Amino acid sequence: MAQTDPLLMIPGPTNLPPQVREALGRPGFYHRGDRMAALLERCSDGLRHLMGTSGDALILTASGTGAMEAAITSLLSPGDPVLAIEGGKFGERLREIAVAYRADVTSYVVEPGHAADPGQVRDLLSKQRFTAVVTTYNETSTGVMHPVEQIAAATREAGALMICDCVSCLGGVPVRADEWGIDAVVAGSQKCLMLPPGLAFVGAGERAWEAAERASMPNYYLDLRRARASARKGQTPWTPATALIAALGAALDIIDAEGLEAVFARHAAMAEATRAAVTAAGLELFAQEGFRSPTVTAVHSPVDSSDLVRYLRERHGVLISGGQGELKGRIFRIGHMGTVHFEQIERTVEALADGLTNLSFGCDAAAMLDAARQAATDAGAEVN
Amino acid sequence: MAQTDPLLMIPGPTNLPPQVREALGRPGFYHRGDRMAALLERCSDGLRHLMGTSGDALILTASGTGAMEAAITSLLSPGDPVLAIEGGKFGERLREIAVAYRADVTSYVVEPGHAADPGQVRDLLSKQRFTAVVTTYNETSTGVMHPVEQIAAATREAGALMICDCVSCLGGVPVRADEWGIDAVVAGSQKCLMLPPGLAFVGAGERAWEAAERASMPNYYLDLRRARASARKGQTPWTPATALIAALGAALDIIDAEGLEAVFARHAAMAEATRAAVTAAGLELFAQEGFRSPTVTAVHSPVDSSDLVRYLRERHGVLISGGQGELKGRIFRIGHMGTVHFEQIERTVEALADGLTNLSFGCDAAAMLDAARQAATDAGAEVN
Repeated sequence: MAQTDPLLMIPGPTNLPPQVREALGRPGFYHRGDRMAALLERCSDGLRHLMGTSGDALILTASGTGAMEAAITSLLSPGDPVLAIEGGKFGERLREIAVAYRADVTSYVVEPGHAADPGQVRDLLSKQRFTAVVTTYNETSTGVMHPVEQIAAATREAGALMICDCVSCLGGVPVRADEWGIDAVVAGSQKCLMLPPGLAFVGAGERAWEAAERASMPNYYLDLRRARASARKGQTPWTPATALIAALGAALDIIDAEGLEAVFARHAAMAEATRAAVTAAGLELFAQEGFRSPTVTAVHSPVDSSDLVRYLRERHGVLISGGQGELKGRIFRIGHMGTVHFEQIERTVEALADGLTNLSFGCDAAAMLDAARQAATDAGAEVN
Repeated sequence: MAQTDPLLMIPGPTNLPPQVREALGRPGFYHRGDRMAALLERCSDGLRHLMGTSGDALILTASGTGAMEAAITSLLSPGDPVLAIEGGKFGERLREIAVAYRADVTSYVVEPGHAADPGQVRDLLSKQRFTAVVTTYNETSTGVMHPVEQIAAATREAGALMICDCVSCLGGVPVRADEWGIDAVVAGSQKCLMLPPGLAFVGAGERAWEAAERASMPNYYLDLRRARASARKGQTPWTPATALIAALGAALDIIDAEGLEAVFARHAAMAEATRAAVTAAGLELFAQEGFRSPTVTAVHSPVDSSDLVRYLRERHGVLISGGQGELKGRIFRIGHMGTVHFEQIERTVEALADGLTNLSFGCDAAAMLDAARQAATDAGAEVN
């Protein structure tokens, strides 16, 4: 098995399709001019479609964290009261950024594995005026999807801005920013978009731009106003990661060819298959029922998950993740995002069954695979 | 000529060697773990060598502008008196970043094409206490290299920090940060390092870290303190541009194989050849004698340089640059950085001669080529 490439079943970076790898390896090119303008336009259009917005979709040369900071610092001012919904590591990061730039942050801390309660959000918003609510949609660290549609509705009613981190789900699940009332969508390249890390995206609607006019947090490199002004001229304000943008064009073509609804259905089916396999092994899912992510599955680990992760990597060339922070060792996480089909789930389940067994947690590989296959089939996926 | 790849003779992004393109197109990989730690260590070592520092060389997923901001915001506080040396677009950018983060900036504006005068810097530093001096080393917009060794000496004597933008020269000319007293070196991937844009680097010495402890400008994504803490564990604080870092390893291997002194000599020789060719055409160099860059040559254009740039691109597939801002149309710039040998200079000179002639500025292509060849030979380069 060491002959084949390592299989990335971590929640990002994800596996790169051949077309993406080909685009990455092309000769260098000039970062301005007609060719780049056309490429940026094609990419922005594709991202707008994924984000469900008729606003701007801006491309930044940064990690997802950079895009979080871009959204916060371009839309807010020091002292602004901000409600941060924290149900894991990435919710915490949004809060940390807001605090670093001197927002007045109130945290709504959600128990890891649970989803934020829109009723509670509404309650918090009724007690105090907030300029903005910042939240993750898909919490990569726990495998939970927060009910952002309802949270966005409560936020809009309260007259606050909604900044939503969709880094690990954009392109894997529907995001309807305009319809739901998300003012700024944050995303990254290395998840469902099948690219290496290095690009991040912010979708921003009209209310975001009104806020940006008043915003006074300092910024420069990550200033969305500068990014928008350049985008109107078919450019970026600073030299962008050209190779990654060429690859983004290729990735969006792949998504278009499969069809966005088919892509979403495949993600949902691969999640069902993964959940069925671990459940068949007698394991418990970490995320609350009804809020389980279609892109990453977190599982209570019956063995030290660090050992399990190492075993799968070393013996099977399959990379999965452990838990972060206080969840270290206690959960493992399987990413099923981007170019993941049943073949990859099968390889992962086989490796997982062997790993658990080897670490003295007996489980039935055949039963796990059968359950995965059945769940995928039930969800309408091709299982070869 | 349209059959061959466009030749990038702009001052970045530059042409990509095959080994770099191969590395970019490799399968995706995990951004933490032993493999990444080894790669980061190899890259940091190589960058430290190029920067001439025994301090830290940190790798950021950003454009060069992001690294400028990282250095300024990690080392300074709002209200800090800062002396910005501005001799072109990139000096201006350093000032703009410092202003955006509320430094108290005094500008020393140098006439475009001229080098900053260390005597004048010393004079300014004697009249007022400054926390830091920010300057470019190689001003990409004018083809001037400022005498940073002397400026650094004056800065150190005055007890100020020296932040130096080496984006368009690191890896093409010697930089001796520790010896000269540069506290923070800023660089980017898409110039002499032969990579696509998307990575930026900051070299920081002991004085920089002492300053960083006191610094209170807000930042997060570009916080060098976080970057250093992660680097000590063989990681980056945020998911880095893995494909570009793999390619950086390949690029540093190429530099090692040629030998750093040979790389510097080749850059100097290609600059001599370029200058000789345009001088033989009767054109005047834009940069002051004695301060001409080994990586980019700026030339007073006898025709509208926008037309010339377009002609060379469309007819010859050779990309050169025009002027920026008030120099638009008035100068053209030829980048000779990274993987540029006499073959590329020859193709550029031929295209340039044809372009000038076609735009009604008569010139003798053979004489220009002869002059280029002679100058390159005199400088010890192989001219095939």
